[in-house]
Amino acid sequence: MTQKLYLEDLKTGDVFKSGEYAITAEEIKAFAGRYDPQPFHLDEEAARDTFFQGLAASGWHTCAITMRLFVGSVPIAGGLIGAGSDVSWSQPTRPGDTLHVDSTILDITPSRSKPDRGIVTIQSDTINQRGELCQRAVSRVLAFKRG
Amino acid sequence: MTQKLYLEDLKTGDVFKSGEYAITAEEIKAFAGRYDPQPFHLDEEAARDTFFQGLAASGWHTCAITMRLFVGSVPIAGGLIGAGSDVSWSQPTRPGDTLHVDSTILDITPSRSKPDRGIVTIQSDTINQRGELCQRAVSRVLAFKRG
Repeated sequence: MTQKLYLEDLKTGDVFKSGEYAITAEEIKAFAGRYDPQPFHLDEEAARDTFFQGLAASGWHTCAITMRLFVGSVPIAGGLIGAGSDVSWSQPTRPGDTLHVDSTILDITPSRSKPDRGIVTIQSDTINQRGELCQRAVSRVLAFKRG
Repeated sequence: MTQKLYLEDLKTGDVFKSGEYAITAEEIKAFAGRYDPQPFHLDEEAARDTFFQGLAASGWHTCAITMRLFVGSVPIAGGLIGAGSDVSWSQPTRPGDTLHVDSTILDITPSRSKPDRGIVTIQSDTINQRGELCQRAVSRVLAFKRG
Protein backbone atom coordinates (compact mmCIF):
# COMPACT_ATOMS: atom_id res chain seq x y z
CA MET A 1 0.00 0.00 0.00
CA THR A 2 1.19 3.49 -0.79
CA GLN A 3 2.58 5.42 2.16
CA LYS A 4 0.16 8.06 3.41
CA LEU A 5 1.27 11.67 3.17
CA TYR A 6 0.98 14.27 5.94
CA LEU A 7 1.14 18.05 5.65
CA GLU A 8 4.91 17.99 6.32
CA ASP A 9 5.45 15.56 3.42
CA LEU A 10 3.90 17.85 0.79
CA LYS A 11 5.56 20.68 -1.09
CA THR A 12 4.61 23.14 -3.80
CA GLY A 13 5.36 21.69 -7.23
CA ASP A 14 4.85 18.06 -6.23
CA VAL A 15 3.16 16.14 -9.07
CA PHE A 16 0.94 13.04 -8.82
CA LYS A 17 0.04 11.01 -11.91
CA SER A 18 -3.09 8.86 -11.92
CA GLY A 19 -4.06 5.65 -13.62
CA GLU A 20 -6.56 5.62 -16.48
CA TYR A 21 -10.35 5.46 -16.73
CA ALA A 22 -12.17 4.51 -19.94
CA ILE A 23 -15.66 5.94 -20.36
CA THR A 24 -18.40 4.32 -22.41
CA ALA A 25 -21.58 5.72 -24.00
CA GLU A 26 -23.58 3.55 -21.60
CA GLU A 27 -21.93 5.09 -18.54
CA ILE A 28 -22.41 8.62 -19.94
CA LYS A 29 -26.14 7.98 -20.42
CA ALA A 30 -26.57 6.28 -17.04
CA PHE A 31 -24.94 9.16 -15.13
CA ALA A 32 -26.91 11.75 -17.10
CA GLY A 33 -30.19 9.92 -16.71
CA ARG A 34 -29.87 10.29 -12.98
CA TYR A 35 -28.07 13.62 -12.56
CA ASP A 36 -27.98 15.68 -15.78
CA PRO A 37 -30.90 14.62 -17.99
CA GLN A 38 -30.29 16.74 -21.08
CA PRO A 39 -30.50 15.48 -24.70
CA PHE A 40 -26.77 15.93 -25.47
CA HIS A 41 -25.87 13.63 -22.55
CA LEU A 42 -28.61 11.02 -23.13
CA ASP A 43 -28.92 10.08 -26.79
CA GLU A 44 -26.59 10.11 -29.80
CA GLU A 45 -29.32 11.12 -32.26
CA ALA A 46 -30.70 13.91 -30.12
CA ALA A 47 -27.16 15.16 -29.39
CA ARG A 48 -26.27 15.62 -33.06
CA ASP A 49 -28.04 18.94 -33.55
CA THR A 50 -26.95 20.48 -30.24
CA PHE A 51 -24.00 22.64 -29.19
CA PHE A 52 -21.97 19.46 -28.57
CA GLN A 53 -22.67 17.92 -32.01
CA GLY A 54 -22.72 14.43 -30.56
CA LEU A 55 -22.97 12.58 -27.27
CA ALA A 56 -20.92 14.25 -24.52
CA ALA A 57 -20.47 13.41 -20.84
CA SER A 58 -21.92 15.75 -18.23
CA GLY A 59 -19.19 17.99 -16.87
CA TRP A 60 -20.13 16.68 -13.42
CA HIS A 61 -19.47 13.17 -14.68
CA THR A 62 -15.98 14.27 -15.72
CA CYS A 63 -15.59 15.69 -12.18
CA ALA A 64 -16.69 12.38 -10.67
CA ILE A 65 -14.24 10.36 -12.79
CA THR A 66 -11.51 12.87 -11.95
CA MET A 67 -12.20 12.28 -8.25
CA ARG A 68 -11.94 8.53 -8.75
CA LEU A 69 -8.52 8.95 -10.37
CA PHE A 70 -7.51 11.55 -7.75
CA VAL A 71 -8.37 9.18 -4.87
CA GLY A 72 -6.20 6.54 -6.50
CA SER A 73 -3.19 8.78 -6.98
CA VAL A 74 -2.92 11.33 -4.14
CA PRO A 75 -2.51 9.38 -0.87
CA ILE A 76 -3.13 12.08 1.74
CA ALA A 77 -3.43 10.70 5.29
CA GLY A 78 -7.00 10.82 6.58
CA GLY A 79 -8.41 10.88 3.06
CA LEU A 80 -9.11 13.51 0.43
CA ILE A 81 -11.41 16.04 2.08
CA GLY A 82 -12.21 19.01 -0.13
CA ALA A 83 -13.30 22.47 1.00
CA GLY A 84 -14.04 23.43 -2.60
CA SER A 85 -12.95 23.32 -6.21
CA ASP A 86 -12.86 25.74 -9.15
CA VAL A 87 -13.59 23.66 -12.25
CA SER A 88 -13.33 24.63 -15.94
CA TRP A 89 -14.34 22.46 -18.85
CA SER A 90 -12.32 23.18 -21.99
CA GLN A 91 -13.85 20.39 -24.04
CA PRO A 92 -16.33 17.60 -23.41
CA THR A 93 -15.47 14.03 -22.50
CA ARG A 94 -16.71 11.73 -25.28
CA PRO A 95 -17.71 8.05 -25.40
CA GLY A 96 -14.59 5.93 -25.82
CA ASP A 97 -12.28 8.47 -24.20
CA THR A 98 -9.64 7.24 -21.77
CA LEU A 99 -8.89 9.84 -19.12
CA HIS A 100 -6.02 10.35 -16.74
CA VAL A 101 -5.37 13.09 -14.17
CA ASP A 102 -2.15 14.99 -13.48
CA SER A 103 -2.28 16.75 -10.11
CA THR A 104 0.17 19.47 -9.06
CA ILE A 105 0.44 21.16 -5.66
CA LEU A 106 0.12 24.92 -6.21
CA ASP A 107 0.12 26.14 -2.63
CA ILE A 108 0.20 25.00 1.00
CA THR A 109 -1.29 27.19 3.71
CA PRO A 110 -1.10 26.13 7.37
CA SER A 111 -4.30 26.87 9.29
CA ARG A 112 -4.03 29.80 11.70
CA SER A 113 -6.81 28.66 13.98
CA LYS A 114 -6.09 24.90 13.91
CA PRO A 115 -2.35 24.16 14.22
CA ASP A 116 -2.77 20.47 13.39
CA ARG A 117 -3.75 21.04 9.76
CA GLY A 118 -3.47 23.08 6.57
CA ILE A 119 -5.12 23.66 3.22
CA VAL A 120 -3.35 22.30 0.14
CA THR A 121 -4.30 23.84 -3.21
CA ILE A 122 -4.01 21.23 -5.95
CA GLN A 123 -4.51 21.68 -9.69
CA SER A 124 -5.87 18.52 -11.31
CA ASP A 125 -5.79 18.36 -15.11
CA THR A 126 -8.03 15.72 -16.68
CA ILE A 127 -6.53 14.69 -20.00
CA ASN A 128 -7.82 12.38 -22.72
CA GLN A 129 -5.98 9.75 -24.82
CA ARG A 130 -4.99 12.41 -27.37
CA GLY A 131 -3.32 14.54 -24.71
CA GLU A 132 -6.12 17.12 -24.82
CA LEU A 133 -7.19 18.92 -21.65
CA CYS A 134 -10.87 18.17 -20.89
CA GLN A 135 -11.06 19.71 -17.44
CA ARG A 136 -8.93 21.73 -15.04
CA ALA A 137 -9.91 21.71 -11.35
CA VAL A 138 -8.13 23.78 -8.71
CA SER A 139 -9.17 22.26 -5.39
CA ARG A 140 -8.64 23.14 -1.74
CA VAL A 141 -7.94 19.97 0.20
CA LEU A 142 -7.35 19.41 3.93
CA ALA A 143 -4.09 17.85 5.11
CA PHE A 144 -3.14 17.01 8.70
CA LYS A 145 0.20 17.13 10.48
CA ARG A 146 1.72 13.97 11.91
CA GLY A 147 0.03 13.25 15.26
CA MET B 1 -43.80 22.72 -20.42
CA THR B 2 -41.93 25.70 -19.06
CA GLN B 3 -41.13 28.40 -21.59
CA LYS B 4 -37.47 28.36 -22.63
CA LEU B 5 -35.39 31.42 -21.77
CA TYR B 6 -33.02 33.20 -24.14
CA LEU B 7 -30.24 35.63 -23.26
CA GLU B 8 -32.64 38.60 -23.66
CA ASP B 9 -35.04 37.05 -21.14
CA LEU B 10 -32.49 36.90 -18.32
CA LYS B 11 -31.48 39.68 -15.93
CA THR B 12 -29.19 40.06 -12.95
CA GLY B 13 -31.01 39.22 -9.74
CA ASP B 14 -33.42 36.72 -11.31
CA VAL B 15 -34.02 33.81 -8.91
CA PHE B 16 -34.99 30.23 -9.76
CA LYS B 17 -36.19 27.82 -7.08
CA SER B 18 -35.87 24.08 -7.62
CA GLY B 19 -37.86 21.09 -6.50
CA GLU B 20 -36.49 18.71 -3.86
CA TYR B 21 -34.23 15.65 -3.89
CA ALA B 22 -34.05 13.19 -1.00
CA ILE B 23 -30.75 11.33 -0.63
CA THR B 24 -30.42 7.89 0.97
CA ALA B 25 -27.46 6.08 2.52
CA GLU B 26 -27.70 3.55 -0.32
CA GLU B 27 -27.32 6.23 -3.00
CA ILE B 28 -24.40 7.85 -1.12
CA LYS B 29 -22.57 4.50 -1.01
CA ALA B 30 -23.36 3.61 -4.62
CA PHE B 31 -22.04 6.93 -5.95
CA ALA B 32 -18.94 6.73 -3.76
CA GLY B 33 -18.24 3.12 -4.68
CA ARG B 34 -17.89 4.17 -8.29
CA TYR B 35 -16.44 7.68 -8.04
CA ASP B 36 -15.14 8.54 -4.56
CA PRO B 37 -14.27 5.30 -2.75
CA GLN B 38 -13.23 6.63 0.66
CA PRO B 39 -14.32 5.15 4.03
CA PHE B 40 -16.39 8.18 5.13
CA HIS B 41 -18.54 7.89 1.97
CA LEU B 42 -18.85 4.08 1.95
CA ASP B 43 -19.65 2.73 5.40
CA GLU B 44 -21.32 4.08 8.56
CA GLU B 45 -18.98 2.23 10.93
CA ALA B 46 -15.79 3.22 9.14
CA ALA B 47 -17.03 6.83 8.84
CA ARG B 48 -17.50 7.26 12.59
CA ASP B 49 -13.84 7.86 13.44
CA THR B 50 -13.10 10.16 10.50
CA PHE B 51 -13.25 13.93 9.98
CA PHE B 52 -16.93 13.61 9.03
CA GLN B 53 -17.91 11.61 12.18
CA GLY B 54 -20.48 9.64 10.20
CA LEU B 55 -21.50 8.77 6.67
CA ALA B 56 -21.33 11.80 4.34
CA ALA B 57 -21.99 12.16 0.63
CA SER B 58 -19.09 12.88 -1.71
CA GLY B 59 -19.00 16.60 -2.53
CA TRP B 60 -19.17 15.56 -6.19
CA HIS B 61 -22.37 13.70 -5.41
CA THR B 62 -23.82 16.91 -3.98
CA CYS B 63 -22.71 18.62 -7.22
CA ALA B 64 -24.46 15.95 -9.29
CA ILE B 65 -27.72 16.28 -7.32
CA THR B 66 -27.46 20.06 -7.59
CA MET B 67 -27.21 19.71 -11.37
CA ARG B 68 -30.30 17.51 -11.42
CA LEU B 69 -32.25 20.18 -9.52
CA PHE B 70 -30.72 22.96 -11.65
CA VAL B 71 -31.78 21.24 -14.89
CA GLY B 72 -35.32 21.03 -13.55
CA SER B 73 -35.53 24.67 -12.51
CA VAL B 74 -33.53 26.88 -14.90
CA PRO B 75 -35.06 26.47 -18.40
CA ILE B 76 -32.40 28.06 -20.62
CA ALA B 77 -33.04 27.50 -24.34
CA GLY B 78 -30.58 25.02 -25.86
CA GLY B 79 -29.91 23.44 -22.47
CA LEU B 80 -27.61 24.13 -19.54
CA ILE B 81 -24.09 24.18 -20.94
CA GLY B 82 -21.44 25.08 -18.40
CA ALA B 83 -18.00 26.57 -19.04
CA GLY B 84 -17.05 26.04 -15.42
CA SER B 85 -18.08 26.28 -11.79
CA ASP B 86 -16.49 27.41 -8.53
CA VAL B 87 -17.85 25.09 -5.83
CA SER B 88 -17.53 25.35 -2.04
CA TRP B 89 -18.77 22.79 0.44
CA SER B 90 -19.71 24.33 3.78
CA GLN B 91 -21.05 21.12 5.29
CA PRO B 92 -21.56 17.57 4.06
CA THR B 93 -24.79 16.15 2.70
CA ARG B 94 -25.99 13.36 5.02
CA PRO B 95 -28.19 10.29 4.53
CA GLY B 96 -31.84 11.31 4.84
CA ASP B 97 -31.23 14.93 3.78
CA THR B 98 -33.68 16.54 1.39
CA LEU B 99 -31.96 19.13 -0.77
CA HIS B 100 -33.22 22.02 -2.86
CA VAL B 101 -31.34 24.60 -4.92
CA ASP B 102 -31.87 28.36 -5.10
CA SER B 103 -30.19 29.85 -8.17
CA THR B 104 -29.58 33.59 -8.62
CA ILE B 105 -28.19 35.33 -11.71
CA LEU B 106 -25.14 37.34 -10.62
CA ASP B 107 -23.93 38.63 -13.98
CA ILE B 108 -24.62 38.52 -17.72
CA THR B 109 -21.77 39.14 -20.16
CA PRO B 110 -22.45 39.17 -23.92
CA SER B 111 -19.74 37.45 -25.95
CA ARG B 112 -17.46 39.85 -27.84
CA SER B 113 -16.43 37.31 -30.47
CA LYS B 114 -19.80 35.53 -30.92
CA PRO B 115 -22.70 38.01 -31.05
CA ASP B 116 -25.37 35.28 -30.81
CA ARG B 117 -24.54 34.33 -27.23
CA GLY B 118 -23.37 35.34 -23.77
CA ILE B 119 -22.13 33.93 -20.49
CA VAL B 120 -24.50 34.00 -17.53
CA THR B 121 -22.96 33.73 -14.06
CA ILE B 122 -25.33 31.92 -11.73
CA GLN B 123 -24.94 31.24 -8.01
CA SER B 124 -26.64 28.00 -6.97
CA ASP B 125 -27.07 27.39 -3.26
CA THR B 126 -27.80 23.80 -2.25
CA ILE B 127 -29.77 23.83 0.99
CA ASN B 128 -30.95 21.00 3.24
CA GLN B 129 -34.28 20.48 5.03
CA ARG B 130 -33.04 22.51 8.03
CA GLY B 131 -32.27 25.52 5.82
CA GLU B 132 -28.51 24.95 6.13
CA LEU B 133 -26.22 25.68 3.19
CA CYS B 134 -24.42 22.50 2.06
CA GLN B 135 -22.87 23.82 -1.13
CA ARG B 136 -22.48 27.08 -3.04
CA ALA B 137 -21.61 26.86 -6.75
CA VAL B 138 -20.97 29.90 -8.92
CA SER B 139 -21.24 28.64 -12.49
CA ARG B 140 -20.62 30.15 -15.92
CA VAL B 141 -23.39 29.01 -18.27
CA LEU B 142 -23.94 29.67 -21.98
CA ALA B 143 -27.12 31.41 -23.15
CA PHE B 144 -28.12 32.15 -26.74
CA LYS B 145 -30.02 35.06 -28.23
CA ARG B 146 -33.31 34.48 -30.03
CA GLY B 147 -32.60 33.21 -33.54
